[in-house]
Order: sequence, then structure tokens, then C-alpha cells
Amino acid sequence: MVKTIEWTADGVVMIDQTKLPAEEAYVTCRDHLEVADAIRTMVIRGAPAIGCAAAMGVAIGVLKASDEELDAEFDEICEILASTRPTAVNLFWAIERMRKLYCGLRKQGAGLDLIRQRLVSEAQQVLVEDIASNQALGKHGASLLPSGGTVMTHCNAGALATGGYGTALGVIRAAVDRGNALDVLANETRPFMQGARLTVWELQQDDIPVTLLTDNMAGHMMQRGCVQAVVVGADRIAANGDVANKIGTYSVAVLAKESGIPFYVAAPTSTVDLGLASGEEIPIEERAPEEVTQVQGLQIAPHETRVCNPAFDVTPSRFVTAIITENGVAVPPYGGALRALVVEGASGRDET
Amino acid sequence: MVKTIEWTADGVVMIDQTKLPAEEAYVTCRDHLEVADAIRTMVIRGAPAIGCAAAMGVAIGVLKASDEELDAEFDEICEILASTRPTAVNLFWAIERMRKLYCGLRKQGAGLDLIRQRLVSEAQQVLVEDIASNQALGKHGASLLPSGGTVMTHCNAGALATGGYGTALGVIRAAVDRGNALDVLANETRPFMQGARLTVWELQQDDIPVTLLTDNMAGHMMQRGCVQAVVVGADRIAANGDVANKIGTYSVAVLAKESGIPFYVAAPTSTVDLGLASGEEIPIEERAPEEVTQVQGLQIAPHETRVCNPAFDVTPSRFVTAIITENGVAVPPYGGALRALVVEGASGRDET
Repeated sequence: MVKTIEWTADGVVMIDQTKLPAEEAYVTCRDHLEVADAIRTMVIRGAPAIGCAAAMGVAIGVLKASDEELDAEFDEICEILASTRPTAVNLFWAIERMRKLYCGLRKQGAGLDLIRQRLVSEAQQVLVEDIASNQALGKHGASLLPSGGTVMTHCNAGALATGGYGTALGVIRAAVDRGNALDVLANETRPFMQGARLTVWELQQDDIPVTLLTDNMAGHMMQRGCVQAVVVGADRIAANGDVANKIGTYSVAVLAKESGIPFYVAAPTSTVDLGLASGEEIPIEERAPEEVTQVQGLQIAPHETRVCNPAFDVTPSRFVTAIITENGVAVPPYGGALRALVVEGASGRDET
Repeated sequence: MVKTIEWTADGVVMIDQTKLPAEEAYVTCRDHLEVADAIRTMVIRGAPAIGCAAAMGVAIGVLKASDEELDAEFDEICEILASTRPTAVNLFWAIERMRKLYCGLRKQGAGLDLIRQRLVSEAQQVLVEDIASNQALGKHGASLLPSGGTVMTHCNAGALATGGYGTALGVIRAAVDRGNALDVLANETRPFMQGARLTVWELQQDDIPVTLLTDNMAGHMMQRGCVQAVVVGADRIAANGDVANKIGTYSVAVLAKESGIPFYVAAPTSTVDLGLASGEEIPIEERAPEEVTQVQGLQIAPHETRVCNPAFDVTPSRFVTAIITENGVAVPPYGGALRALVVEGASGRDET
């Protein structure tokens, strides 16, 4: 399987997701500014993958920072990385994890070489844990999927959106690994076409049968009885189970409910933001108008067209059948169930 | 305003809707085969416009047909035109109207010159009546729209989809003409992008404020309170009020109901098919996979990707707040109300 992101001697290497599937190109980020740029321009995207990139961005930034101004530069590195994208909480989660480690080591009076070494290890550990989380949540979720049915997914919550393996696609992969002959319906996911470009490509690499739809066909396919379950990823989950995810997810959830189809969200607990009571507090990124008026540089609407381009929406928890995490599956009411899974995870893992 | 279709001495002239908005090009169809091709390749599209094109296609076919084999050639002309697209009932309605006139004149023993002349007049009359219908339904529907609110529309049910003025956009135009300062949200309408390419262009020409969305943003905008009404056109309406329209319409209707937003359908009575008890009987056209894997020739998905491409969906009448026709507005229960509007129309117009 393709590596989404990797720490190498040359820098942080990422597959360029803006170029897939036409081209399998790699980008090497040699400092935190280049990592920030890669996140902002969606060379790397997907909440868990953004978390991995942010951790590595902090580490490579500290490697290059001056000894004299390290504390100030550390803050600046974190600030720059945190300002790239507002919605995916994994970004802030990863930066916070790196900051805790850094501050702890500084307090202990650790040497600068040791600090740098530990930050690099920690960033690599974030990646390792993310892949392990995906595999664990895949196992928890696999039995929820219908036997031999068709599962719809929206956007790309696959290996490319994570350290590897995937969240929503991780659940599908785990089910297929157990011998469940699933079919996948992939919504193309305008404007960035993550479904058409990334999910289709990724599943084809694994020989998992996949059929592509435009986003506006999702309801029709459900109405016609062609969908037995929906599984998507998440960019941030509020304490009450409201889910921010790629724009269009809310529509898919409402349509699934209308047709009596279960709607599952798969995400590591690093995506759960217990600090937010509900999804209404989740900031929604508004991206550049050209993403809507163009498709990969091809102008489709008149010039000077006014557009909206919210990159995410919020699905209220009442539309969510279950939330699948590495620590188990939460079902409504989510308040207590989610908190238990997150806290269990925190105590069960070395959070430094 | 631009002319969608026109009968000229050179042939049937249409604006090429596959080229808009980049280019304002015109196509001249010199026989019924070229008209059939223009319908099939969506040079002209939109149920009422397809009806106008079919009527003109019959007329130009008969003009070019041989005197000796006229009856046989007439049948062939009708068959070729009827085989272009299966869903929009206006196609069959217009062909049937032309056939009734032709058979009546043949029975009366009318001369061939007179027959040709009458068919050409009739085709032009279909266009004139369609524009008049749109203006009438615009008047009936205008007062339904919220004052100064934002109205969402899907696909293009405008001047370009009709003889002129439009159905859904006709209602919006009529409301604006009465001084209602509406804002329009246009869903881009993948795969053919009629919203981004045609609706935005058409409304900009009329200085009606319009904002473009990708289809998967519709639910989010409704959830956020940014939409006060939805108005769409129709390709076929069954006797019970079920509505076939451009793919994605069903999703918009379900989402509107979820947010308590009224969902209006605007169509001439020629779009109502009293012969079908419900929408389940409406044939849904499946179009070429390249429309999904490409955007205007630009490949967006891996080659060899399996796709679905239903061009229409069916919105059950329980999601439809009202159906606006040239003869008045039908509200649920639709059975009797629709029949009354269609029959009233039939008796009130010269149907030959």
C-alpha cells in the first residue's frame, strides 16, 4: 500500500494528493513552513493524516530552529501549523501533544539534542499509533457492515486520509479481509473530488469493487434500495456526537435516515473534541471560490461568479447510527459513551 | 434574452448548450436527424425545450420527405425523434401533437403543400405556446416565493430549458419583475453542470443575484437557514404528483423537508403524464460513463472506473409543496388537482 506520509532523512515525504490519480508524485517538506503549505494546499488532507503531518511539522521545525531562541521559535512553529486549516481537530490535537512533550522536557532541563530526538520520535509515534488505531477501529466496525451488501462512502477516509489503512475505508478493508464481499459506492465529492480521485484509486489498488457516483446521485441510489450502509470519516466530533466531516456528509446522513439505512462514522478518538458541547461550535473552513468555479483548473462557470465554498458540514448526532473508534463503538446517547471511549484511550495509551 | 431555439429559413437554429458559458455558438439543424442528434447530445435540453425541438424536428423532417412515401417517412421521423431521450414526456407529447395534426389532415385529404405548411406553423405554435405557458406559470408561482428571501434551484429550468422565460426561473423572473429582491442559490448539477454553466449565466444576463454551490452543499445551506424556498422544473410528472427531474432533485426535496423549507415544482401541463399512475413507472435515462469520469473532457477519475449515471430521479409527491402550471397551482392531494389543471388546459387551448 502507498505511504501517505513518511519521516525520512531528507524531510517529511508525502504523496501529492492534488495530483492523484493522474500522477503518483511525492513532495518532500524540508521545514515546518513547507509542511504548513502542504496541509493548506491539500497535498495532504484527511483529519488523521493532517494530525500526522502537523506532528512531523513541529519536529522538523524544531530540528531547524536555533538553540538560542528555541522557545519562541517553538511557539511560532506551532502557531503557523495551527493556522493552516480550522476544522480538523487532529491538527490541534497533534500540536498539543508535541507541545506537552516539549514543555515537559524543558521543565526537566533536558538537553537540546535529546529534546529534538524525542520530538522526532514522538512524531513518528503519532503515525504508528494512527495506523494501529485505524486497524483497531476497522476490527470494531467490520461486523457492523451488511454481509455482501453495498456500502456508500463520501470523500476519502482511507489510507490517504490517515497514516495508513483508513477510517471509513479501514472498516471496509477489515470487513473485506474477513471475507465479506462488499461493493462500495463512492460519491465523487465536489469540489476537490476526493471520492473520484482518491477513494476510487485506493480501492482499485486493493481490488475492492467500487462504483463512482456524482454526489447528487446518492439519494437516488438509496431510494432505489442500492445501499445497505453508509460509512464516513470525521474531521471533528463534538462531545454530544455531532460530526463535522467533508461537505455533503450531512446530506448523505439525512438521505440515509429517510431510506432507513444505517449511517456510521469511523474516526480515532483523536478526532473527538470533548471541549465542544455540540457541533454548532465547530468552525467551518471556507475555501477559495476557484475550487467551485473550476475543476482542476478548467473553468466551468462564468468568470466573476459568486460562490459559497464551505469545506465541511455538521451532521447532528441524531442521524448517526454509531461512532466507531479504536477503543470500541459508541451508540446513542453519545455523551457518556464517547467520553468513556476517549478517556479509556487516554489511559490506555502513552500520551506523555 | 437569448433564443434557445428558432425556426428559420435555413433550418432549426439552437444555441449550443454544451458550449455555454465559454462560447455563445449556434447550431443549425437541416433535417430531423440533425435535430435528433442535437437532442441526444444535449445541444438542447430541458423538457419543454426538447418538446419544441421535437415538434420542429417533425416539421423539418416532413419538409424534406418524399411525396411518395410520406406516411412511412412520417412514422420513421417520429420514431427517430422519440428514441432520443426517454424521460422527458414533452418529447412524446410534442410528437403526438404533430402526429394528430398530420393524421387529421391526411384523413381530410389535404394537399401535401398545405400539410407541410400546417406542420411548420404547428411547430412554431408549440414554441409560442411554451413561452406563453412559462409566463403564465411565472405569474401563478411568483407570489409563492418569500419576499426578499433566497431561493434554491437545481439544474437549469430557465429560458434555455424552454422556448424562453423558463419554468422554475420563470417563477423567479416573475417574482423579481414584481419587485421581489430575491437571491438565487444555484446547485452546479453534476455531471453536466447545467447549474454552473447555464443557470448562473442566464441569471447574470438578467442581473438577478445568483450564488453557485456544488450539489453537496445544498443540505448545509438549508441547515444553516440560508434557503427560504426551493423551486425546480420537471421532466415528467405522474398523475399522483410524483416528479421526475434532473438527478439530485430528490435529494434536494428530502433536505428541504428536513429543514421545513417549501419545495415547488414549476412545469407546463405538457409535462404532466396522466397515463402514469405514479413516478415508479417513469423510465430513467442512464447516460454515458464518461460524463461522470470526466468534466468537459478532463479526466478526473482513474481510467476504467465503473460508474452509475442516471440522468434523472423521482421525487415522491409527499415532498412537493405545490406544482405550478400555466393553468394554476396544484397542492396536495395531487390526483384530482393535477387532472383538473391538465383538462382545463386542454379545453382552453387549441390542441387541433
